Amino acid sequence: MKIKEIYNFLDSLSPFDLQEKWDNSGLLIGNFEDEIKQVYISIDLDEQIVDEMEENSLVITHHPLIFKALKTINYDSYSSKLVKKLIQKNIALISMHTNIDKTHLNKYVASKILDLDVINSEEFICYANVNDSFENFANKISKNLGLKYLKYVKCNEEIKKVALVTGAGMSLISEVKADCFLTGDIKYHDAMEAKARGISLIDIRHYESEKHFSPLLEELISEYLKKNQLKAIITASKNPFKFCTQGEPVE
Amino acid sequence: MKIKEIYNFLDSLSPFDLQEKWDNSGLLIGNFEDEIKQVYISIDLDEQIVDEMEENSLVITHHPLIFKALKTINYDSYSSKLVKKLIQKNIALISMHTNIDKTHLNKYVASKILDLDVINSEEFICYANVNDSFENFANKISKNLGLKYLKYVKCNEEIKKVALVTGAGMSLISEVKADCFLTGDIKYHDAMEAKARGISLIDIRHYESEKHFSPLLEELISEYLKKNQLKAIITASKNPFKFCTQGEPVE
Amino acid sequence: MKIKEIYNFLDSLSPFDLQEKWDNSGLLIGNFEDEIKQVYISIDLDEQIVDEMEENSLVITHHPLIFKALKTINYDSYSSKLVKKLIQKNIALISMHTNIDKTHLNKYVASKILDLDVINSEEFICYANVNDSFENFANKISKNLGLKYLKYVKCNEEIKKVALVTGAGMSLISEVKADCFLTGDIKYHDAMEAKARGISLIDIRHYESEKHFSPLLEELISEYLKKNQLKAIITASKNPFKFCTQGEPVE
Amino acid sequence: MKIKEIYNFLDSLSPFDLQEKWDNSGLLIGNFEDEIKQVYISIDLDEQIVDEMEENSLVITHHPLIFKALKTINYDSYSSKLVKKLIQKNIALISMHTNIDKTHLNKYVASKILDLDVINSEEFICYANVNDSFENFANKISKNLGLKYLKYVKCNEEIKKVALVTGAGMSLISEVKADCFLTGDIKYHDAMEAKARGISLIDIRHYESEKHFSPLLEELISEYLKKNQLKAIITASKNPFKFCTQGEPVE
Amino acid sequence: MKIKEIYNFLDSLSPFDLQEKWDNSGLLIGNFEDEIKQVYISIDLDEQIVDEMEENSLVITHHPLIFKALKTINYDSYSSKLVKKLIQKNIALISMHTNIDKTHLNKYVASKILDLDVINSEEFICYANVNDSFENFANKISKNLGLKYLKYVKCNEEIKKVALVTGAGMSLISEVKADCFLTGDIKYHDAMEAKARGISLIDIRHYESEKHFSPLLEELISEYLKKNQLKAIITASKNPFKFCTQGEPVE
Amino acid sequence: MKIKEIYNFLDSLSPFDLQEKWDNSGLLIGNFEDEIKQVYISIDLDEQIVDEMEENSLVITHHPLIFKALKTINYDSYSSKLVKKLIQKNIALISMHTNIDKTHLNKYVASKILDLDVINSEEFICYANVNDSFENFANKISKNLGLKYLKYVKCNEEIKKVALVTGAGMSLISEVKADCFLTGDIKYHDAMEAKARGISLIDIRHYESEKHFSPLLEELISEYLKKNQLKAIITASKNPFKFCTQGEPVE
Repeated sequence: MKIKEIYNFLDSLSPFDLQEKWDNSGLLIGNFEDEIKQVYISIDLDEQIVDEMEENSLVITHHPLIFKALKTINYDSYSSKLVKKLIQKNIALISMHTNIDKTHLNKYVASKILDLDVINSEEFICYANVNDSFENFANKISKNLGLKYLKYVKCNEEIKKVALVTGAGMSLISEVKADCFLTGDIKYHDAMEAKARGISLIDIRHYESEKHFSPLLEELISEYLKKNQLKAIITASKNPFKFCTQGEPVE
Repeated sequence: MKIKEIYNFLDSLSPFDLQEKWDNSGLLIGNFEDEIKQVYISIDLDEQIVDEMEENSLVITHHPLIFKALKTINYDSYSSKLVKKLIQKNIALISMHTNIDKTHLNKYVASKILDLDVINSEEFICYANVNDSFENFANKISKNLGLKYLKYVKCNEEIKKVALVTGAGMSLISEVKADCFLTGDIKYHDAMEAKARGISLIDIRHYESEKHFSPLLEELISEYLKKNQLKAIITASKNPFKFCTQGEPVE
Repeated sequence: MKIKEIYNFLDSLSPFDLQEKWDNSGLLIGNFEDEIKQVYISIDLDEQIVDEMEENSLVITHHPLIFKALKTINYDSYSSKLVKKLIQKNIALISMHTNIDKTHLNKYVASKILDLDVINSEEFICYANVNDSFENFANKISKNLGLKYLKYVKCNEEIKKVALVTGAGMSLISEVKADCFLTGDIKYHDAMEAKARGISLIDIRHYESEKHFSPLLEELISEYLKKNQLKAIITASKNPFKFCTQGEPVE
Repeated sequence: MKIKEIYNFLDSLSPFDLQEKWDNSGLLIGNFEDEIKQVYISIDLDEQIVDEMEENSLVITHHPLIFKALKTINYDSYSSKLVKKLIQKNIALISMHTNIDKTHLNKYVASKILDLDVINSEEFICYANVNDSFENFANKISKNLGLKYLKYVKCNEEIKKVALVTGAGMSLISEVKADCFLTGDIKYHDAMEAKARGISLIDIRHYESEKHFSPLLEELISEYLKKNQLKAIITASKNPFKFCTQGEPVE
Repeated sequence: MKIKEIYNFLDSLSPFDLQEKWDNSGLLIGNFEDEIKQVYISIDLDEQIVDEMEENSLVITHHPLIFKALKTINYDSYSSKLVKKLIQKNIALISMHTNIDKTHLNKYVASKILDLDVINSEEFICYANVNDSFENFANKISKNLGLKYLKYVKCNEEIKKVALVTGAGMSLISEVKADCFLTGDIKYHDAMEAKARGISLIDIRHYESEKHFSPLLEELISEYLKKNQLKAIITASKNPFKFCTQGEPVE
Repeated sequence: MKIKEIYNFLDSLSPFDLQEKWDNSGLLIGNFEDEIKQVYISIDLDEQIVDEMEENSLVITHHPLIFKALKTINYDSYSSKLVKKLIQKNIALISMHTNIDKTHLNKYVASKILDLDVINSEEFICYANVNDSFENFANKISKNLGLKYLKYVKCNEEIKKVALVTGAGMSLISEVKADCFLTGDIKYHDAMEAKARGISLIDIRHYESEKHFSPLLEELISEYLKKNQLKAIITASKNPFKFCTQGEPVE
């Protein structure tokens, strides 16, 4: 099966033209005419999972491995190192980033993973009704995402409506119309801003909120691949973060 | 005492011209000719601490309250809200940000707070010898900063040399020449980058690593203020983040 | 009455979205949810008129007080000084600039104040038939605007058609299709350009041609305010310019 | 005599490299190798004075005729029209603008024309001691410049120190350290700004304050030209502005 | 006949609004109201052909004489020199560049001059069927354009489809969907790029491929001019290039 | 031997910091710590010469293979295709472009290859005395560079002084102070410009004038490599251009 056939199918699922102008979704490495024998799906790449992939395959990631354009490929940086490994194993790479955030991922995480009552999902922000205490709600999020340790900013005792952006969504804070905002990679100044605006935050983390990309995409493309005698293997780059408390690992 | 006198003294301690070109350190609110009766020092401002300040005073913060230039002052955003409060109480504001990072703060946190063996401190990055296991070192950091819960990326068992940038320093990762890097606000893609480069990370958090600005500055200016019949009051905006594990507060 | 209600009414009269992209019309100081008890209208602000305003009111000006975004509020500059006063008295500020120029002001000044035979008014330029000698026409303008002293560039004895832009409109000279152009703040190089193009100029001054904003707006909103138990007070920043001839004041 | 010889002499008087980066001083029309038989000096050009010039001559103006680069030469605009005339008469054009402002003109107008006690003249701003009442000082300026009609902004009764910039200098207001500022082409918002800063203004007009360029330059180059059997003719573009009061011409 | 009448007729033939945004087609020198007595057509101008033109005429060229906007007209550069000559003879200049490339020229050269089987011509690229050997096709091109000496890059023995852009079209290489590309001014790195993409190139040269502008335009406007008692004279700037081989001139 | 050792040696010969700001000289592919066993030198790369290289080697080229930063590596374009090949064979790439032009190449080609009497060589332009007829000089150039077929622009019968820029140097035409200019990739508008300026041109072609990079560099580094038990192999990407006249190949 040729890459361009899968590319076109993915484009019909979630048009690459929907990506934000700063994004770099699409075919990043490879040639539309190449034949592939194996498809992998992963939120990201790291050295170990590329080592374990078969040659002449295709990997579909959520995050674009090439984000800032490359002036040199010097094997020091994260992207250069993995570009080298992929090319040496002749593995093609397609990334589906802000296009699938908009068409599927936010809604999927909100309804299927977090079990929220979604009322609206457009562009990057997904809204749901809550009507519960902050504590109950935080516990539910914690359990559904499997986060033992929770970082949060609390402004109110009760939450009526929640907004969700998977990954790192704090740049959207001024557009949020809800009393609680769920997103990842929340920085200190973001937290100060939210506090002043009276919007509670629960940090659902970048990796943990977006790793659901893989089962979601697998579900969306398995039938199509089957017809073409292919199967998608879900693989996962490791979460780089570990947590400990007083020397004892927490997660 | 006039604001311009204190301003000039602060400038002699840590020249405002040393600030980065994207920074906004200096006299942000007030008039050089105004008389002040009270000086406050704080890493940042929040509504509560401004409410508790006396009128006609001066507050010196680490982070510039006005960072992105204001086209409107609409009282929704963090900075507009506090600009309003300061002006209504006629409180002047001076911020010392990247200038004092370079001249004092990084070195102070490394040697006085973290008790490290500093070998070199220039521009934003401070280096220290470690020669210890990752576990021992992480525990030491954890204890000295009072962090019950530690987020980290571990690439090696042993650490020889460590680099430190207080606040949010991950944009400097490509310049770091050490096997471990201490900084705050570490995001997921930063962690992936560090992992690929083989540099361990310990997240010393933004607020917790920079709140030491206040006692440091107090020490530096108390004598000068005394001569002018003034005293600096250390106050502290609250850390907006809280942490819990399975419903139980951790910190 | 809440600010957002008046704001919405003003927006229906003269949509803020019509403003030029370099303009800063809209709610510049205040909060949409604030209650106001008094409304003032003025072409601009100066210290004296803000001193005379009641607290917790709203002022609607023609020119945006904040034009260049503020990096500091240091009380030296015109805008910082008045921003301080407004905030200390908790007075909100809405500016209606290029939007009302386009929808009402140019046409109003041309027909009601200057008593011209308007044939067309679109975007910024308003056209009228004249068919009179330059002298007669200049005298009429002089009388209707109350300008004792007139600055002009004369290229023809007869004027058939005149173009008008209130305020400072010389950047539009290359679009003017008329034999005389009325606008304010005419600079020397503007006059050289007009002379070469054979277009006469009469300087109707910036303040004098735009102070009519206040009665115009009062007329447009009085009924609406009345229904809400409010009244608009027309106030006026002083014209900063004075004129004298050989030591004797002229105007 | 070749143009490049005069050009080099002018450059030694007032180096063209001193011009501001937005300026366009230098040889604007002509060829360094061309022979010239006649030299004219004028603040600016207009159609009439070019008509009266001899062919194959050189004119030195203060303001650059080509300021915005030309994409077309369509004979409608001021600069295109005069470019055409100059080329058809084979007249070369050199402009000395911000270079001579800095080296000679501001100081010359302050001391020789206005008879001020100059204390300092650097870059664009020239300072002088005054110590007189505003009225007396304004009358002196009025008389020395021959301005029957004076536009001003008055903030103080007494003037200690005055700053002067010939031409249009209001963009420098925030740098002015004096209680009165003399410059030309003062616009309404400039006046509001000055008023808020407490700096009085007297509008010395653009043309009237810079027409002294011609006798100044003539004095500087006459001896040099004489040695080369040439003479500079002072000519003058007309002031495009006229003034009247109630139909009667004032100036 | 007035220039604006011819201009409007040319605009109806090939709208000037179709030009690329970096282009400068239109009336470059002259005035829409000027009367002209003679029309010339030429791909470009050089000193000799302007010397031979009659005064008070109009010349229509393919390439805009003013391309980079002029800050000075110093008679050294190609465009300044000819601008001078045109103005001194009061000759107006209209250029029709990328607008006529799109509407007429590419198609005309492909079908009338090169005798190709055109299948499609839109924007800048014109496509034709070939189905011949590279050698035969290259010989045909060579003969039809009168090029004794041919520069080419050969990637295939057979050519099925050819793309053509007159003038200098190599910046469009990534859009070309053909096995051979005909254009002029092919540089070394362009050739490397085409070779890697497997697209053969034949350099049809800039002047030689676009000089057909003149007879094409003459055909398009002769009837219109006749009705207005005018005639277009085809003239030609000289090809600046000459070729020799071992001292002997080739073309 | 490690790449960084050779890199440092090359940097001492011709500092990479001398490159123009638009250039991309330096280590483009590879890792400073990699060991290499073989060194190749070539003006450029093409598929065939990379196929023939040994794995784990280093190639030094004149032109940077990565010039425009890469957002994707899609194997269609020249640079992507060769980046893929180099990485798959683990071949490192260093480019020495504008730095060596300035320090060695222009002077070398002028004196050693063209046998000119060099009088001055700085930045990009190299000057030499000629004092010969255009015909004699053109023949000499033709013979010394081995160009059977010569493209030129002739403005004068005699040449006194010549300027030389290897590669594509026509953007420097306005700086050239000579009566003949030798460079490559001369386009039609360049030729028109030179003709108007009276400067003759001889097109010494891009590839043919720069292929001398390889023997030059080999000479400069052979001794150093020898000490390190290495040898540089001169290889050559093919000239993509071929030439024929009436079907018969010329070169």
